[in-house]
Amino acid sequence: MTKTPTLADVARRAGVSTATVSRCLNAPERVQRETRERIEAAVAEIGYSPNFGARALAAKRTDTIGAIVPTLENSVFARGLQAFQTGLVAQGMTLLLASSAYRPDLEAAQIRTLVARGADGLLLIGHERDPALYDFLALHRVPVLVAWVYDPSEPRPSVGFDNKAAMAEMTAAVLAQGHRRLATISGHTRFNDRTRDRVAGVRAAMAAQGLDPATLTVIETPYGIETGARAMADLMTAPHPPTAVICGNDVLALGALRQARAMGLRVPEDVSITGFDDTELSTVADPPLATVSIPHGEMGARAAIMLTEMVRTGAQPDSVALPCVLRLRGSLGPVPRAA
Amino acid sequence: MTKTPTLADVARRAGVSTATVSRCLNAPERVQRETRERIEAAVAEIGYSPNFGARALAAKRTDTIGAIVPTLENSVFARGLQAFQTGLVAQGMTLLLASSAYRPDLEAAQIRTLVARGADGLLLIGHERDPALYDFLALHRVPVLVAWVYDPSEPRPSVGFDNKAAMAEMTAAVLAQGHRRLATISGHTRFNDRTRDRVAGVRAAMAAQGLDPATLTVIETPYGIETGARAMADLMTAPHPPTAVICGNDVLALGALRQARAMGLRVPEDVSITGFDDTELSTVADPPLATVSIPHGEMGARAAIMLTEMVRTGAQPDSVALPCVLRLRGSLGPVPRAA
Repeated sequence: MTKTPTLADVARRAGVSTATVSRCLNAPERVQRETRERIEAAVAEIGYSPNFGARALAAKRTDTIGAIVPTLENSVFARGLQAFQTGLVAQGMTLLLASSAYRPDLEAAQIRTLVARGADGLLLIGHERDPALYDFLALHRVPVLVAWVYDPSEPRPSVGFDNKAAMAEMTAAVLAQGHRRLATISGHTRFNDRTRDRVAGVRAAMAAQGLDPATLTVIETPYGIETGARAMADLMTAPHPPTAVICGNDVLALGALRQARAMGLRVPEDVSITGFDDTELSTVADPPLATVSIPHGEMGARAAIMLTEMVRTGAQPDSVALPCVLRLRGSLGPVPRAA
Repeated sequence: MTKTPTLADVARRAGVSTATVSRCLNAPERVQRETRERIEAAVAEIGYSPNFGARALAAKRTDTIGAIVPTLENSVFARGLQAFQTGLVAQGMTLLLASSAYRPDLEAAQIRTLVARGADGLLLIGHERDPALYDFLALHRVPVLVAWVYDPSEPRPSVGFDNKAAMAEMTAAVLAQGHRRLATISGHTRFNDRTRDRVAGVRAAMAAQGLDPATLTVIETPYGIETGARAMADLMTAPHPPTAVICGNDVLALGALRQARAMGLRVPEDVSITGFDDTELSTVADPPLATVSIPHGEMGARAAIMLTEMVRTGAQPDSVALPCVLRLRGSLGPVPRAA
C-alpha cells in the first residue's frame, strides 16, 4: 500500500513551510501568486488530497452542490436555479444556495463556506473573480461550472449565452426603428462581466451602423425599480434626452417605464424603452416590454447535467452556448418625428 | 472526568436497540412516534449529543445558518432573506439557502442535508410540516426559528405577522367600498399555513359584516402571473362575476390585472383587484396595486438576531409579531353601480 501524501510532503516538494501550505488552502489571497502556483503544482504532482474541516471528515462525496448567485431579488436567477435544482434532484443531489448581494468579499466567504460544508461542486455566475478563489477551488478539487455567460476563451467550462451579441441584436432592432439618440441604463459593470458585455453590445451595434459609440449616454446604477426610475428621470430632464432607452435588465426597464408614465411621457410615442431577461413581468407592463428572452430553464437544466458529470467523472465538458430570442413588444416603436 | 454518553446509553435508557436510536436520528419518519418521544426523552435526560456525519466531525459550531424557503421566484422571500443575510453577516455567520418548490418531500431532504452539512440553526417558513422533522431537529439540537407567521400557540418561536388579521383588514377595506360579491384567488392551502390563514381572514371579515362566508368564491392555484390570469378569466366569465377579487399575493394579482386588461375590463371601474406582499412591482402596475405591505426587512433583521442568539446561548426567545400596513392604491375602488 502506498503511503497517502501529507501536507508535509506538499510543503517539502514546493519548498515552503507547512504553515504556508495550510494558509494557501484556507486563505489563498494571503499567499503570493507565485507561491500558490508552486504549491498547486506540488499538490498535482504528488496527488495530495487536501483534508480540512468538514470536507475531510465527511464521506468522500456528499451529493451536495453549491451555487452562488449575485442576488435573489431578480426572478431571473430564480428561474434558472429552479430548473438547475430540478435537474439535480433527478440525479439525487441537493442544492445549497448563497446570495452574494453583488459583493465579491461575501462571495469569497460563501465559496469557502460551501467547500468547508462539503459541496461536491459549485455553480457560479460569470467568470470574473479573484484568481485566488479559482486556485483555492482547484486545490480542494471542487469542480466549478460558470453560468449566465458563454466564453470559450476562459479556462473553465461555462453554460450560458453571449450577452454582448444578444444586446447588439436588440440595439440593432432599436436602430432599425430610426432611433439615433440612445441611452443605456446599466447595472454596475465592476466585477460583473455580464453587465459589461451588454453595454459593449450596445456600442458594437452602434459602430456597425456607422454611429459613434461615444455618443451613447450610460448611467450605471444598482439593479432595481427605484434606481431605474431615477436614472430615467435624469435622462429625460437632460438637455438632449434620448429617444430610446436600452436597459440592462427588465427591472431597470420597468422602473424607467413607471417614471415615463409619471412624467407624462407616452411609451413608445415619446420614448422607447427596452429590457433584458424577459421575466414574466415584462408582459404585465403596459405597454408590454420589448426585451431579450434568455434561456433560463434550458441553462439550468444543462448546468445540472454538466456539473453532476464533472463531479462524478472528473470530466471537463466543453462550454455550451444557448440562443437568446428578441421579444419586440409594444414599448419599442419608431423614433418620434420631432426628434 | 465524566464519561460522554453514547448511543448505547440512549438505547438502554429508552429500552430500544441501538439500531432504533440510529434510525431515529437519521430517518425519524421510519420510527413510531411514541418510540421517538421515548428516545428524545432519553437523549435529554442523559445529555447525549448525537454525533453523525459531518456534524459530529466538524468543529462544534460552524457559524453556518440554513434557511429553506418555498420558492425563490417570488421576490418577497428574497427581500426578507436579504435582510436576514445582512444581519447574519454582521454576526460573522454565513447563510446557506435551499428552495423547496413548495414540496414537503424536498423540504425534508433539505433539512437533513443542511443538518448533515453542519448548519448551526435553521430558519423555516411557516410551522406546518411533518412532526418527525421537528423531532429530528430536536435530537440533533439544531434550533429552529419560524418566519412569515406569528403564532404564539405553537411550541417553537416565530417572527412574522398575523396573516389572517392582515387579510381581514384588507377585506374590510374592500367591503367598505360597497363590494358584496367577492372572490379570492389563493395559492394552494395544503401544507401552507400562510395561505390558509389569508383565506380565513377574508371569511372572517365577511362574517364580521354579517355576510355569509360561504358565498366567497375561492380558486386555488399555484402562485404565478399566468395562473393568476387564468383564474381571473374563469371568475369573470362565470354567470355572476365578482366585483372585487382579493388575491393571496401580488403575483396572482398582477396576473389578474393583466387578464382584466386583456378582457377589456377597467380596473377599478368594472372590477377591483387587491394583492398581498407589497412587492416593488405593485407600484409598477397600472393602476398601482392595492396591497398589504408586510415587514420583510424588519422580519429578516429580527430573525438574524433571534436565531444567532438561539444558536449561541441556547435561549428560546418569545415569538415576535410585526405590523402589516394596508396600501390602498388605484386598483381598489367603489363597487360598480350596476352591480
